[in-house]
Amino acid sequence: MQRVCVTGAAGFIGSNLVDRLLAAGHDVVGYDNLSTGLGEFLEPARQSERFRFVRGDVLDLETLTAAMAGCDFVFHLAANADVRFGTQHPRRDLEQNTIATYNVLEAMRSAGARRIAFSSTGSIYGEPDVFPTPETAPFPIQTSLYGASKLAGEGLLAAYAAGFGFQAYIFRFVSILGERYTHGHVFDFFNKLRTDPSRIQVLGNGRQRKSYLYVQDCIDAMLAVTSKAEAPVNVYNLGTKEYVEVNTSLDYICEALGVQPVREYTGGERGWIGDSPFILLDTERVNSLGWEPRLTIRDGILRTLAYLQDNTWLLERRA
Amino acid sequence: MQRVCVTGAAGFIGSNLVDRLLAAGHDVVGYDNLSTGLGEFLEPARQSERFRFVRGDVLDLETLTAAMAGCDFVFHLAANADVRFGTQHPRRDLEQNTIATYNVLEAMRSAGARRIAFSSTGSIYGEPDVFPTPETAPFPIQTSLYGASKLAGEGLLAAYAAGFGFQAYIFRFVSILGERYTHGHVFDFFNKLRTDPSRIQVLGNGRQRKSYLYVQDCIDAMLAVTSKAEAPVNVYNLGTKEYVEVNTSLDYICEALGVQPVREYTGGERGWIGDSPFILLDTERVNSLGWEPRLTIRDGILRTLAYLQDNTWLLERRA
Repeated sequence: MQRVCVTGAAGFIGSNLVDRLLAAGHDVVGYDNLSTGLGEFLEPARQSERFRFVRGDVLDLETLTAAMAGCDFVFHLAANADVRFGTQHPRRDLEQNTIATYNVLEAMRSAGARRIAFSSTGSIYGEPDVFPTPETAPFPIQTSLYGASKLAGEGLLAAYAAGFGFQAYIFRFVSILGERYTHGHVFDFFNKLRTDPSRIQVLGNGRQRKSYLYVQDCIDAMLAVTSKAEAPVNVYNLGTKEYVEVNTSLDYICEALGVQPVREYTGGERGWIGDSPFILLDTERVNSLGWEPRLTIRDGILRTLAYLQDNTWLLERRA
Repeated sequence: MQRVCVTGAAGFIGSNLVDRLLAAGHDVVGYDNLSTGLGEFLEPARQSERFRFVRGDVLDLETLTAAMAGCDFVFHLAANADVRFGTQHPRRDLEQNTIATYNVLEAMRSAGARRIAFSSTGSIYGEPDVFPTPETAPFPIQTSLYGASKLAGEGLLAAYAAGFGFQAYIFRFVSILGERYTHGHVFDFFNKLRTDPSRIQVLGNGRQRKSYLYVQDCIDAMLAVTSKAEAPVNVYNLGTKEYVEVNTSLDYICEALGVQPVREYTGGERGWIGDSPFILLDTERVNSLGWEPRLTIRDGILRTLAYLQDNTWLLERRA
């Protein structure tokens, strides 16, 4: 990698990745339409002469192709990352995740870039029977528009590898936590408890078991895989060997905040349509490359909470 | 099923399905843009008062939604069925298979139809390690834009089942043969040998092992599954327990035509980018519903050849 393009560069994971790529000496083009990304997250990157920001939409093929000029590697992180509200606007996942990924691949074909990393999701396993769930799990049945749209993106990457000689890195993430985190359960719990520490609404029965990964661990893993794995199509789960119940995560948060809210459950095994009651990915494949996460889930949650407490402007921006 | 909509109604499989649905007493709306479908294939259906034809594109959501008024079941067969030329126009698979399927689901949501059958493909297994390949094969890596676009369609159906209470029937076909067959290896071989019986070009090394299913057997299976399977998402391989080498199929064809051409191979294990050297689907799941194919692959090939010999106008239309 010499010159790298990052789509979704102003997002949570994207902006952290940009900083790391610049620190490692790469030239970086950041691409973002700033619809959910935040310009503030790119302030550190803007200090570097090796960084160039292009404001544009991944659905705008012309601008995207121009932005990629001279890049040999693309981290395609731009996405509708909102897994909960798919049924309210099904077209959004199709456009922002599936068609957008097609556009990124076509822009690369025009611009001459051939290596791509893609942020997929453990949600594509639907509700698996095997835990921890390996990359070679039985062919799953999708349970969310978000998962379906990411699965479609994965298929496109693989087809471009076979058809056009691309090299593809597909990362199936658990939920990611850490600095610049702007949505998810820690955000929601903290936001609600700030307003009213006496009570808290929990989606589902609170017994959902989830895996979380700290953003810098996630980036370490992506950089390790893209530098070491050499197949035309490389599929890697990224997660930890742990999981926590939503209730336990709420315990950590309440303890750190010194609050004891009454918990009100909306009920049911799932927090929303397409929510997976249990996510635990088998990470043997990425572990075999020498990568291990440094933070436990608990430390990741506490660090995220501390970040949000220091950056309450984020909560106003997201309100 | 009372009133049924068939997209791709003027196509090879679609028009045969329309005839069968009418014969079984259903009201049928046939939808087709006649870009590859042939009006001639719907002549028998037009004799029925229970048949209505709507000429329209599946990408035209308004016309499609209007056509589905009053339908409770949709057979979505409209597709770019051309698996060989994906890399020449990658947008075609995305639009005609993925976005089109999204449109069909959205039209159904508006029109109040909730049951859908979808023609997927064994190509979504890529190049599997397990033969015969079951529906629960390890999560595959796509090898063609066609497969990727159909995989995306499958994911959308499943997500609509989870999100909107749809009931989905996903059929993973091997290649289908029989009356009204308009593309594929029997068509190509017959077409070439009619012009020059002294030589024949074979894509790849001719050792590709393929499975074929006779179109009426295919329709029997779809009707059996849609009447018997009751899960929200029902995934069924449709094929036979046999396979033939391309060379063997050519033997059948040459013998029937009484020709002995010199065979010229383009070489390699695959006939084209994304061609699968071996396709054999595990059909235990559909067999357990009491369905078995009636025609052997050999009989299917010979019947297809006889049909083409009786309908050489098709070869002119496809030239």
